Amino acid sequence: MSAPATVNVVALARALIDAESVTPARGAVFDVLEAALLPLGFAVDRFVVGEAPDGPVENLLATRGTSRPHLAFAGHVDVVPAGDGWTSDAFASQVRDGLLYGRGAVDMKGAVAAFVAATAASSDVGQVTLIITGDEEGPATYGTESLIERMRDRGIAPDLCLVGEPTSARALGDTIKIGRRGSVNIWIEVPGRQGHVAYPHLADNPIPKLVAALAELDALVLDKGSEWFQPSNLEVTDITVGNPATNVIPAAAKARVSIRFNDLHQGDTLATRVAEIVRRHAPEAIVTSRVSGEAFLTEPGPLSAMLSAAILHETGLTPELSTTGGTSDARFLRALCPVIEFGLLNVTMHQRDEAVAIDDLHALTRIYADLLRRASSVG
Amino acid sequence: MSAPATVNVVALARALIDAESVTPARGAVFDVLEAALLPLGFAVDRFVVGEAPDGPVENLLATRGTSRPHLAFAGHVDVVPAGDGWTSDAFASQVRDGLLYGRGAVDMKGAVAAFVAATAASSDVGQVTLIITGDEEGPATYGTESLIERMRDRGIAPDLCLVGEPTSARALGDTIKIGRRGSVNIWIEVPGRQGHVAYPHLADNPIPKLVAALAELDALVLDKGSEWFQPSNLEVTDITVGNPATNVIPAAAKARVSIRFNDLHQGDTLATRVAEIVRRHAPEAIVTSRVSGEAFLTEPGPLSAMLSAAILHETGLTPELSTTGGTSDARFLRALCPVIEFGLLNVTMHQRDEAVAIDDLHALTRIYADLLRRASSVG
Repeated sequence: MSAPATVNVVALARALIDAESVTPARGAVFDVLEAALLPLGFAVDRFVVGEAPDGPVENLLATRGTSRPHLAFAGHVDVVPAGDGWTSDAFASQVRDGLLYGRGAVDMKGAVAAFVAATAASSDVGQVTLIITGDEEGPATYGTESLIERMRDRGIAPDLCLVGEPTSARALGDTIKIGRRGSVNIWIEVPGRQGHVAYPHLADNPIPKLVAALAELDALVLDKGSEWFQPSNLEVTDITVGNPATNVIPAAAKARVSIRFNDLHQGDTLATRVAEIVRRHAPEAIVTSRVSGEAFLTEPGPLSAMLSAAILHETGLTPELSTTGGTSDARFLRALCPVIEFGLLNVTMHQRDEAVAIDDLHALTRIYADLLRRASSVG
Repeated sequence: MSAPATVNVVALARALIDAESVTPARGAVFDVLEAALLPLGFAVDRFVVGEAPDGPVENLLATRGTSRPHLAFAGHVDVVPAGDGWTSDAFASQVRDGLLYGRGAVDMKGAVAAFVAATAASSDVGQVTLIITGDEEGPATYGTESLIERMRDRGIAPDLCLVGEPTSARALGDTIKIGRRGSVNIWIEVPGRQGHVAYPHLADNPIPKLVAALAELDALVLDKGSEWFQPSNLEVTDITVGNPATNVIPAAAKARVSIRFNDLHQGDTLATRVAEIVRRHAPEAIVTSRVSGEAFLTEPGPLSAMLSAAILHETGLTPELSTTGGTSDARFLRALCPVIEFGLLNVTMHQRDEAVAIDDLHALTRIYADLLRRASSVG
């Protein structure tokens, strides 16, 4: 392999930000990334999947080297919309007072740029693969799952995977995610019989049954947390009857429940449990569910140890190993190999004036490069 | 007073039905009624009140004689819409197999015709007043309350009032209404703080509080009934959250409650009690209410005794003295004098192929005429 070119992490982050790429993303932003990767010796595979409204989505696989261990970096170059109130154009990056502003600065074009720069500084490591989608902030219909399928088809099988989501909470390096809670949504419909409120014996009001079921669900203690997870939590997120007539008992009542659950549960088992409770109050209720992702945990091990060491070396901080927060594409990547998440400060993500400290971009580049070296030394 | 003309009750009922008069009603149907009343010696006072959408509404006051007791008949010539599925035109009366078909046949153009015919057959009685509105089936904004105001202005003060609503359930004469339950609607809004379901500690879900309040309201026993009334009843008639996002905890949750209550309660007191229960679960809840009518009872007395005797004489039935069912304009008329309700069979009211037996029209005319005579004999 020829000696790699160096990569200016700030310049690459700015070029990625300037290529506007609200989900579903394709085209220019991937051109920028490919142009940065090719001189570093990566073989780049880009492909477009899906149709409107969730697509078309572009995905990119880039791989270099063959020796083990094979470390993958997963990320996305799509961003959420700008929203209002920006000091400068969200899609025209700007540096002010040591901060780089622009949509995607921390979530997560900055981290993608840092990892690319890290690979430029680390030629003598094992196989490296970048798994980059244009659909992480959206429904993820044509994103990381398509990339995983493509990797299977092409025999790309990493040993370890790092996701570059912004996991740091107060200072770069304070938090690594070693797992995520699972998520299941449950829809409840209780049928009744419509009638006049003056003649309740001729009607069957579905609302009291639904209310009793929801009260029991709300009182449910799913668990008290597990070794690495906080307690699972159930929220009733919607109730709909839609009865405009004050003198009418309605024909049906609906509700929706969302459960974020830890590694003590499976989504389907929870949905079944909810359905059983609902049917005790309303035997004729219709209960459907959709599991967005199961809980997963990469038990602390070599990967988190190496990453923690690299972070300590750079920042002086010993990161917390966390499983809090929402879901991420790690829920798909866990099917491949142990997965861990580490990236920039998440304070401004999805907000106006999203920004990353220039110092943090350089520090993250050094941490990623250090991880690449540590991983290859144990290979 | 000159000898009155006779009135053909079937012909008058048909003429009223043929004058289409969906709420709010005015014009032709009142022309028909006025034309029938003038030859009978009534002084007729018609007036139009209100504007769209609840108006304009026509009302009619007709009075004859001066001697006591002064008996009033209250009714309406507006009707509910035809709806689908009629065998013949809802607004073109038709007689088939001894039944008169048409919208309003029983509710209550038939009864209005019967009372007019009864007055034609009973010239030697006390003062008689007809209180007829074109807005009973609608919001009643410009209907009977306007008539009561007009009566006060003009010094028309009946001693007894008969409302011609279709009270008979299985056979003409089986039921008299001597009271009606009250009705109050209550709107509940529980505010919360919107947030992401993955971070429930940063949000405040209003749904569990609303659900707990509704569960307690639903379990409430307001009373066990009173001498003349069935137990009061509370129904939750609507719940609205309107949150389309599965991963969002909503900012507010709303519900609506309807209480039909007996003479042990006042509407405002019930609304206050509901608000207190709601606020125990959600101190910041906003609770508003509207009393559609208080419960009222005309204790069994001379009026119900005379009417029962007239019914027994004509039909052989001793009517049940009932307080069941929805509200009626009797809730306003009770402010004037003792009020009682008696009319045709209610089986087909508000339905397709609304119909009255020709025999019942004649029988009701005789009952009303008998009541007029009995009332004047005790005057």
